[in-house]
Amino acid sequence: MDYSSLFRQIKDYPKEGILFEDVTTYWKDADAFAYSISKIVEYFSNKGINKVVGLEARGFVIAAPVAIGLHAGFIPIRKPGKLPAELISRSYSLEYGENHLELHKDAISPGDKVLICDDILATGGTLEASEQMILELGGEILGIGLLSELTFLKGREKLSTKDIFSLYHVQD
Amino acid sequence: MDYSSLFRQIKDYPKEGILFEDVTTYWKDADAFAYSISKIVEYFSNKGINKVVGLEARGFVIAAPVAIGLHAGFIPIRKPGKLPAELISRSYSLEYGENHLELHKDAISPGDKVLICDDILATGGTLEASEQMILELGGEILGIGLLSELTFLKGREKLSTKDIFSLYHVQD
Repeated sequence: MDYSSLFRQIKDYPKEGILFEDVTTYWKDADAFAYSISKIVEYFSNKGINKVVGLEARGFVIAAPVAIGLHAGFIPIRKPGKLPAELISRSYSLEYGENHLELHKDAISPGDKVLICDDILATGGTLEASEQMILELGGEILGIGLLSELTFLKGREKLSTKDIFSLYHVQD
Repeated sequence: MDYSSLFRQIKDYPKEGILFEDVTTYWKDADAFAYSISKIVEYFSNKGINKVVGLEARGFVIAAPVAIGLHAGFIPIRKPGKLPAELISRSYSLEYGENHLELHKDAISPGDKVLICDDILATGGTLEASEQMILELGGEILGIGLLSELTFLKGREKLSTKDIFSLYHVQD
């Protein structure tokens, strides 16, 4: 099934010149949402993944059901000031702005087999920072699972993870 | 199974005098996470729910897999400035602070049968604001599904929804 027409493009959001991919119109369709999660789960099944990391906030919407589908734990990587216990952090630059991300120190144990999930791969800044934090805690990153990828931004080139699965690809 | 010992209590977070319930230590356990989602899905099965609304950000972690389990669409209610299209908003007061929430106007259609999910019911301010926005758009709220409820804060008394399911209850 091709549900790609369910994405909505918003001009000049959040800043002039940015064409924003709105995933909410995709997620509100029960068939499309179920299809996307089942495809990501299918792709990463039988690889021994025991932790699925989601990037706040839209990444949680992919990572949480994928964690259920793979019978793995769910781990949030969050924006500053949201995680209450001891943490590590990493800064990143975005298409529009700069920020940093945080991860609980005890969220990943050495040897954990980790899948990172997010909604859309754009420039790859948040995923790159996430890879670095997971590796710092001794996790082994087996893959990255995405709903969609803006291929023209070449985010993949920033990432050290080899096995990246995107269900949709936006070419320009 | 009783996984309630997996929650972590953090003193004086985010402000002095608050005992914060940290759910991340629960979610990182694959068995506990799967158990909690299956219980919420089981409780709300066969009621005709077609939209599951999650409250940013931790509510997404419950709502997204519950939406998959019920074969419903997933709808985010978000903090200010995160949703790109036409929206409605509602302010609320928290245990610690005040803010407002936003919902896309086209996220709920009149007659939609809606389940709202969040991680923890505390004072009920965000859930009350969410109820109001969903009702404003013509949705019918069939229930609220929660991981845990701080019963001593009496959040339920604020809510108009009758069918509220919490897997865990914190008494004091």
